[in-house]
Amino acid sequence: MKNIAVIMAMDSEAAPLLNKLEINHKIAGKIDEHLPMKVYKTKYHGHNISIVTSGECKRNKVQNVGTAPAVISTLTAIKDFKADFIINAGTAGGFKKRGADIGKVYTVDTTVFHDRRIPIPGYQEYGTYRSEHKIATDYAKALNIETAIISTGDSLDMSPEDEKLIESNLALLKDMEAAAIAWVTDQYSIPTLFLKSVTDIVDGEHPTEEEFFANLKLASENLGEKLIELIEKI
Amino acid sequence: MKNIAVIMAMDSEAAPLLNKLEINHKIAGKIDEHLPMKVYKTKYHGHNISIVTSGECKRNKVQNVGTAPAVISTLTAIKDFKADFIINAGTAGGFKKRGADIGKVYTVDTTVFHDRRIPIPGYQEYGTYRSEHKIATDYAKALNIETAIISTGDSLDMSPEDEKLIESNLALLKDMEAAAIAWVTDQYSIPTLFLKSVTDIVDGEHPTEEEFFANLKLASENLGEKLIELIEKI
Repeated sequence: MKNIAVIMAMDSEAAPLLNKLEINHKIAGKIDEHLPMKVYKTKYHGHNISIVTSGECKRNKVQNVGTAPAVISTLTAIKDFKADFIINAGTAGGFKKRGADIGKVYTVDTTVFHDRRIPIPGYQEYGTYRSEHKIATDYAKALNIETAIISTGDSLDMSPEDEKLIESNLALLKDMEAAAIAWVTDQYSIPTLFLKSVTDIVDGEHPTEEEFFANLKLASENLGEKLIELIEKI
Repeated sequence: MKNIAVIMAMDSEAAPLLNKLEINHKIAGKIDEHLPMKVYKTKYHGHNISIVTSGECKRNKVQNVGTAPAVISTLTAIKDFKADFIINAGTAGGFKKRGADIGKVYTVDTTVFHDRRIPIPGYQEYGTYRSEHKIATDYAKALNIETAIISTGDSLDMSPEDEKLIESNLALLKDMEAAAIAWVTDQYSIPTLFLKSVTDIVDGEHPTEEEFFANLKLASENLGEKLIELIEKI
């Protein structure tokens, strides 16, 4: 029996998983009375499951995407919910030149940042923070999916500097949380599995912000299916 | 009597303050056995003071600069140390066209991000996360210094996209933590004062990474002096 925490950014990414687990998404717990994160707890397949989403920005009424909320969700899952297995599940941009396709789900064997440029020896590697997650390979086989390298940054778009670093990191996926979550779970040496579903083709003809919402439901449905399969294999 | 937490990124930025408070910097506490942050506790001028630095990256042996560690330090100061007044003190780049000079110390009345570009209505404002800190004006008067707008990003350098946003935000200062700390303390509505000392001129002729270390000691000394003055005025 494990204490599994599923860290997710957006409520809509979590909805299919909550449905499958028969959790009423209207009855969310909170981390504390001040923080926006939503928490759902259940038992499944012999494991304690905590699902944490970053919740809504009270000021701008949008979802708290990005690294800062993800760091808080992950830290809380470890310290308060005693998580001993972390899953970061969510949507991502994908590069078609590396095989990505809308709705395709991947595990992640390597996380890396592309927006922490610190051109000083040692700091450069700290900024990039390349982190390997060897369990990704076995779970990918078990789920009959592929593994990928993911590159994380706090922007939805991609600047030329971002593109250069994503390219040099050979990333197939681009998201806004994974590498920050890896940095936290690394501190505690907690096994971490990333499951990412492609919402938009970064090197395609449509801007990310258009494709993202058009494909969010499909990508989240596929993610939910693989998430259930994954939890059954832990 | 307040529980004041001073959140700082680098140990060398904190050294002058620790000296003035007669704290042995070799005897640091920790947040927990896994996290790299260093914690120093003392009493001064009737207040409980916790000084938290982001500590060293165990893998790369450099300081844990940037937003992710700063979020953890701030959250811990609030939840574990019951901080009811947060000071974020540190060094920053400054723009000479807005009056910055090496070693000059500012309070910050506005924090903003320049590396969270999300071109979707609502998300754009969430990404920028402009946060106002009105107490900065009174403390600036009391300390006989000026107030500034600071723009935060996880890179030490400045890409053309960063520059465009920093310019549109009218920022005088550029750092790697402030806006993320503001985002956390905003969730809890905790008064937050930023005190920033200029290590390098961003719009000058020298690359930041050269100027930064050359001026780090001077900037940190000036910061330490103003920090003590500040705590005496709270």
